[in-house]
Amino acid sequence: MSLREDGPAALDWLTGYFERVRELPVLAQVSPGEIRASLPGSAPERGEEFGAVLRDFEELVLPGITNWQSPRFFAYFSTTGSEPAVLAELVAAALNQVGILWRTSPALQELEEVTTAWLAELLGLPSGWHGQLEQGASLATLAALAAAREVQPGFVLASEQAHSSVDRACKLLGLELRRVPVDEEFRLRPDSLELDGACAVVATVGTTSTTSVDPVAEIAPACAAAGVWLHVDAAYAGCAMICPELRWAFDGVEGADSLVVNPHKWLLTTQGCSAFWTRRPEVLRAAFSVVPEYLRTSDEVVSHSEYGVELGRGFRALKLWTVLRCYGREGLQEVIRRGIRLAELFESWVRYEPGWELCAPRPFSVVCFRLEGSDEENEALLERVNASGKVFLSGTRLGGRFVLRLAVGSARTNEDDVQLAWDVLRKEARC
Amino acid sequence: MSLREDGPAALDWLTGYFERVRELPVLAQVSPGEIRASLPGSAPERGEEFGAVLRDFEELVLPGITNWQSPRFFAYFSTTGSEPAVLAELVAAALNQVGILWRTSPALQELEEVTTAWLAELLGLPSGWHGQLEQGASLATLAALAAAREVQPGFVLASEQAHSSVDRACKLLGLELRRVPVDEEFRLRPDSLELDGACAVVATVGTTSTTSVDPVAEIAPACAAAGVWLHVDAAYAGCAMICPELRWAFDGVEGADSLVVNPHKWLLTTQGCSAFWTRRPEVLRAAFSVVPEYLRTSDEVVSHSEYGVELGRGFRALKLWTVLRCYGREGLQEVIRRGIRLAELFESWVRYEPGWELCAPRPFSVVCFRLEGSDEENEALLERVNASGKVFLSGTRLGGRFVLRLAVGSARTNEDDVQLAWDVLRKEARC
Repeated sequence: MSLREDGPAALDWLTGYFERVRELPVLAQVSPGEIRASLPGSAPERGEEFGAVLRDFEELVLPGITNWQSPRFFAYFSTTGSEPAVLAELVAAALNQVGILWRTSPALQELEEVTTAWLAELLGLPSGWHGQLEQGASLATLAALAAAREVQPGFVLASEQAHSSVDRACKLLGLELRRVPVDEEFRLRPDSLELDGACAVVATVGTTSTTSVDPVAEIAPACAAAGVWLHVDAAYAGCAMICPELRWAFDGVEGADSLVVNPHKWLLTTQGCSAFWTRRPEVLRAAFSVVPEYLRTSDEVVSHSEYGVELGRGFRALKLWTVLRCYGREGLQEVIRRGIRLAELFESWVRYEPGWELCAPRPFSVVCFRLEGSDEENEALLERVNASGKVFLSGTRLGGRFVLRLAVGSARTNEDDVQLAWDVLRKEARC
Repeated sequence: MSLREDGPAALDWLTGYFERVRELPVLAQVSPGEIRASLPGSAPERGEEFGAVLRDFEELVLPGITNWQSPRFFAYFSTTGSEPAVLAELVAAALNQVGILWRTSPALQELEEVTTAWLAELLGLPSGWHGQLEQGASLATLAALAAAREVQPGFVLASEQAHSSVDRACKLLGLELRRVPVDEEFRLRPDSLELDGACAVVATVGTTSTTSVDPVAEIAPACAAAGVWLHVDAAYAGCAMICPELRWAFDGVEGADSLVVNPHKWLLTTQGCSAFWTRRPEVLRAAFSVVPEYLRTSDEVVSHSEYGVELGRGFRALKLWTVLRCYGREGLQEVIRRGIRLAELFESWVRYEPGWELCAPRPFSVVCFRLEGSDEENEALLERVNASGKVFLSGTRLGGRFVLRLAVGSARTNEDDVQLAWDVLRKEARC
């Protein structure tokens, strides 16, 4: 193949993809096994042209893509892989860096330090925290709880609404997870925290179901007094802290021992960019460091590979650096504010529409709502809406009831897209 | 920014990078903190042009890049991020997929099944194993040992030469690791395996220091008889199994419970492509599955997110699919065979050069050697060679002595590059 010929073809393909993605089905309209069945059973004996692969990709693979880049994607947490981030991924792929020790990629190591410091400042965090970029929040939370366990044994406390990655990390680490009840607005109830015997508390700023905010300002002093590690999971809502008017949600975060925020959720980087900070890096290092002989050098520089599960890390900092520069503080604030405004608008439509109800407060850009009726009706409604391919929403369960969620998060989403979601919902509700 | 303008600029940059990478310093010629100090202390308030970021990248960041893509990179395990893989990364970045449930990306899930099955066949593995792609072998080994622990408690056995990721996984999982002695060729001695009370054995096919091969054909039946999980770490050498004449190294692998091979090491994909198979997927699933309410759907399809640490996975299969198709079996075999031939050549030079010695057998493409003299002389030699920027090698410690390693792995390396390494070594040795 030739980069001079095939590169422009790939670039053309994706430029066209961005131009038409709004019109593509959001949820892939295929049956299980359909993509697999369309592909040969074996790899070819001889190499093929890249152009042939790109054609098959378009014809055979693309139908099986759920278009996360669609402005009409409202499920889970909606994201944006922005154009600057995509090009940064291209450059990073070409460099193919493996960050193990500092010397294996000084730029990777130092740009990771620089961008996590920049981001900390943008989000109003204290200066001086050790920052690093992980592939995802599951790995960050695993690292945080490994550090907590390093300090002392004990169980882990998190609210009923905390993310499943906490369960998984506890299971791996052999820690008992005790779920703490939430109040009527789905926030952890600090009066239910029994810290005696705990090694860690995970507080969530922006829970996955409703984006509720645990009261960190009350939890942090209690953890500090009890000597319990406080990890704050702000994977989604932490991104919104770039707007000063939303910083109430970070009240008390300066007392956290560790914190995770995913720029790949709402700050325009592509996937694989989860910012993880701790103010106790020496504990994190103790939890992970296993330097073998073949990696010892005389460098007096500490490497990120001693602070997490991965030995070799990718050049994730390049996309974060590119995004922070191409959007700037103002550009990113605008994306957050627009997302919240659109969610607010949708919320207002639901509020005043007979036969529909709101099911949780909406602090950020996720609206929880349902048709007044049975769970079965709501589940069937969601299936019909998603089967239309026009928009894609997901559901959750709150207080035992099935609830629909509309999450705004794509920078490409506009009012017409949200209006379309509402139109499709009402139309399918009448069926 | 505009993809139509900035895309070609990024593509031009990297096309030029590939053209000149042979001439760039291999090991970054910067001091600790130098890159960091060259960058501003804060992110900009307003967005900047992508072109400005690309210029700063070239001027400020590139000097801090250790050029893993250089054909003169001979350290650790040398790799190739091939052009087809780089373009596949571009397409994957544009799609920004998040594989959680099948429906969140049917193509990601099914292409991962297809490509791991293709690769299994190419490497001569039994059909029907459950395959998935992890970000790296550290995560695969963690998953394997979590599964082993799920079957029964116990300690883990691995040779003195096994990779540090085994230590790390054991530390996370709370498992004791017992190191087993090796024979004079750095292979695990099966007669030293005391399986009573063990939950897992990690056998290595291609150890990190010398690429020695543990005798899996002897270890597997012993593990099976004792009911102990056998994980085979073939992160590097597993790639070479695409050549039938090298399959002796996989003798007995059909008895393994799990296996990891990294296409991103020697099969031309970019980083973040570690193939992980198990013949006991139900155990792996039991070790990881924590499906919360907000992810439950009516899909009767099992998702890869239930089989590992990550909840949301990237579209890693796209680059593997692209590489397998663009090179085909023959193209990949040729890369492996050429790498081995070049290593063999270098080995022959060392063998017949007075004052130098070989330090381990060379089953694949890594040569362990040293100057006859003290550790200090060899360490100083290595520092001088790497400081030249002309080539980059790493060292290790074998039998208490410091040893140099030359690892051939880049598909771009030719005989002149290996000759240059030897010339620089001999020149610096005379200093």
